[in-house]
Amino acid sequence: MNVVALAGGTGAAKLLRGLCQVMPPSQLTIIGNTGDDLELYGLHISPDLDTVGYTLAGLIDTAKGWGVAGDTFHARAMLERLGESTYFALGDRDLAVHIFRTERLGRGGSLSAVTAELAKQWGLACRLLPMSDDPVRTRVRTPRGWLAFQEFFVRERCEPEVLEVAYEGAARSRPAPGVLEALAAADAIVICPSNPMSSVGPILAVPGIRQALAERRDAVTAVSPIVGGGAVSGPAGKMMLAHGHALTPAGVAGIYEGLLARLVIDRRDADWAPALRDRGIQPIVTDSMMTHHEQEIALARVVLEAFR
Amino acid sequence: MNVVALAGGTGAAKLLRGLCQVMPPSQLTIIGNTGDDLELYGLHISPDLDTVGYTLAGLIDTAKGWGVAGDTFHARAMLERLGESTYFALGDRDLAVHIFRTERLGRGGSLSAVTAELAKQWGLACRLLPMSDDPVRTRVRTPRGWLAFQEFFVRERCEPEVLEVAYEGAARSRPAPGVLEALAAADAIVICPSNPMSSVGPILAVPGIRQALAERRDAVTAVSPIVGGGAVSGPAGKMMLAHGHALTPAGVAGIYEGLLARLVIDRRDADWAPALRDRGIQPIVTDSMMTHHEQEIALARVVLEAFR
Repeated sequence: MNVVALAGGTGAAKLLRGLCQVMPPSQLTIIGNTGDDLELYGLHISPDLDTVGYTLAGLIDTAKGWGVAGDTFHARAMLERLGESTYFALGDRDLAVHIFRTERLGRGGSLSAVTAELAKQWGLACRLLPMSDDPVRTRVRTPRGWLAFQEFFVRERCEPEVLEVAYEGAARSRPAPGVLEALAAADAIVICPSNPMSSVGPILAVPGIRQALAERRDAVTAVSPIVGGGAVSGPAGKMMLAHGHALTPAGVAGIYEGLLARLVIDRRDADWAPALRDRGIQPIVTDSMMTHHEQEIALARVVLEAFR
Repeated sequence: MNVVALAGGTGAAKLLRGLCQVMPPSQLTIIGNTGDDLELYGLHISPDLDTVGYTLAGLIDTAKGWGVAGDTFHARAMLERLGESTYFALGDRDLAVHIFRTERLGRGGSLSAVTAELAKQWGLACRLLPMSDDPVRTRVRTPRGWLAFQEFFVRERCEPEVLEVAYEGAARSRPAPGVLEALAAADAIVICPSNPMSSVGPILAVPGIRQALAERRDAVTAVSPIVGGGAVSGPAGKMMLAHGHALTPAGVAGIYEGLLARLVIDRRDADWAPALRDRGIQPIVTDSMMTHHEQEIALARVVLEAFR
């Protein structure tokens, strides 16, 4: 069974780690968000691809949910001494990955090629694809103007009011090589429990990808990142509200309108099951929180079962 | 008194640290060798400029003579995991400097501009200039062919036989802004005890610089890096022999033919004083080894006295 997963960062990575335990990883293709990529000090950073890669390679700092376990921040301290802005914390081991990626891109390599190379060196058995080799940048409009996603997310700690979320460059971007082919050939397509606005939204904004999912709607299962009236983590809530989406499974279903056959929701949201059925979406009620590794595996099982 | 120093790495940095103790550093201009610069992982590394900068900033790893004291090598370990060649050991703090420099150069900044910025951030009171903003690369011909300087020096540990030393790009390079002006305005010009072939040689190979020194010959004092029949450190010996220069103060004087008014030599080479006088060079005999900081200061005093 070929499984394709649309993935953001931490939440997605946990489910993906679970999936790799309950299916042959070689049959898993991950389409990762690059809308929150950024350039710092001339280095190309792909936070979501790296979070997924680090997690599946067993390198992730589990406590923080990002970066490499046990990493040090000595280069950052020197950059600070040199007067650079260091709000975006880059560990020393992490930095090596960005240096590696930037060097390849500088030589004309594509983001998909360097992502494949990183995945191989990390020993990943699954396939990790960026959504696009073209730059797509999520931007957040606040009362003080537009912010790059990481400025909003990290520098401003998600504190500003969100008026709008947009995907700069999306209109002229193309899906990375293999993305549409993987979606067309998938037996199952999973939309991970990631921020629908800033993690999955950019992927769906790449021309051709939303349509490819719509055509495979019967194969698509999403896992709701909204549980008990709020986002499990991150700024999904205020972003969804800014665009008029309720913080409920129905709100999530609204964002993925026309794309879903099934939506996995948490037990505490079981009351929403009828409303989902009314929209033609099969609700799958389970324990969807992934605090422990066992829960990742259990949730992955539920997601795969849904396709059988 | 305006002092200009031509400098390589470790040996030069020690004398310069001494000079900064016995004269106002604001009157010191250092012209640093960039012939052993290299690109690794897309990063521009200027080992000699950094060694001088780290030393004068009090950041140098004194035991190794290069890099930042207490630095870690976590990025290097990750780069190795990613399959990169890591023969050239870059510490994490050190890496930040190369990232900083590369970013500035990538935005069209010059090496002199970024060097000035680094010097300022490190709190250096003297002026640090690269010899040129253009690429000049020292290459070493061995029985197995040409090697980049750092391949010979670090990767091959200076083991191959040296047939020839050359300065690629030198013919079409120009002195960095301020270099010729500083030499013209100097009250004293010091050629530091650096490798005459791979540290001072590239500086003199930049068109205009050798001529500028020749015109100021009366102001020029060199410190011999050859003591007791061999180089104090590094591959100066085999490089000098390859070009027919004896490993003696007279050999050093031969390389700097027409440029020197004075040559500081070690007491154990006092016998060479008459031969130097015969060449019209005033020998200054002293203890020239700089094992301790006090010796750096003492040697710096001797060098400055020579101009009075």
